[in-house]
Amino acid sequence: MKILGIDPGLRTTGFGVIERQGSKLAYIASGTIKTPDADLPQRLKVILGSVSEVVATYRPDCAAIEKVFVNVNPQSTLLLGQARGAAICGLVGAGLLVAEYTALQVKQAVVGHGKAQKSQVQDMVQRLLQLSGLPGTDAADALGVAICHAHSGDTLATLGTLAPELAKKGLRVRGGRLVG
Amino acid sequence: MKILGIDPGLRTTGFGVIERQGSKLAYIASGTIKTPDADLPQRLKVILGSVSEVVATYRPDCAAIEKVFVNVNPQSTLLLGQARGAAICGLVGAGLLVAEYTALQVKQAVVGHGKAQKSQVQDMVQRLLQLSGLPGTDAADALGVAICHAHSGDTLATLGTLAPELAKKGLRVRGGRLVG
Repeated sequence: MKILGIDPGLRTTGFGVIERQGSKLAYIASGTIKTPDADLPQRLKVILGSVSEVVATYRPDCAAIEKVFVNVNPQSTLLLGQARGAAICGLVGAGLLVAEYTALQVKQAVVGHGKAQKSQVQDMVQRLLQLSGLPGTDAADALGVAICHAHSGDTLATLGTLAPELAKKGLRVRGGRLVG
Repeated sequence: MKILGIDPGLRTTGFGVIERQGSKLAYIASGTIKTPDADLPQRLKVILGSVSEVVATYRPDCAAIEKVFVNVNPQSTLLLGQARGAAICGLVGAGLLVAEYTALQVKQAVVGHGKAQKSQVQDMVQRLLQLSGLPGTDAADALGVAICHAHSGDTLATLGTLAPELAKKGLRVRGGRLVG
């Protein structure tokens, strides 16, 4: 199963594609979408078009996007909201189901606790996906969202039906992860 | 020239299509897009799809959308931003240029001053477009944005080249309107 993760923003939108092969995660691609200095509709058009292009290129089976913070500046919140709306449109317009995760959930899934620094997320993403170099922060966040979704209850829904079997082995699913 | 006006919102998005025939404005269509009680990506999908459908049905030459207020509740601002982003994507995705106007500009263009009540906007929209009944508030706002754009400098850009001719007749363009 191929998962596309998105870290939305008006200036830069990170994307990351991974593939879950059994219990292993493999890196497929990642990058950053940058918008030009133009009026808002034209910038949203770039985000919409670029996300659509990423979907057309890598044909993910599902998508996940980071929930954004409410900024102290309401105008920034409004702009970020519109950028996130455009990124989601690029996903749903292609027929993808879109899951949403907070930064806290992503950090918990990738690093193991919600107070991780950005550099720790980059480190763990590099290790989990066996990358040769450290990913950029946008790409790392986007790959982190994809990893979070790979570990989530949604994608592990099948494990629900396996619960009795897992229990026999002393395992169970908590917060989308297998725990002993 | 056909103009599509949009009044964006997460629950309801108003749309209105008018045609400028010389100095006259004619009503073509208006309505409200309502989103279901679903998760955010699915609601944005409805806005994106419905705006795209309106564009495909009425084939406007350009579009205008209301600038939204920053809400006292930052979460509401974020949601409204995402809804507006989705509506803009429906427009730019169809290749339309999108102009943006504040509620103040719309009221000034439709009623003549920026402190007009909603009911005054409805009244003037009905009168300007010779509608048989009072339009709903969402539709009136959307038609108001379209009327504002019809009167704006963008659409009257050609008048700029006519300025010397207009001056001879004692006319000039101010705030996108012809004044004596």
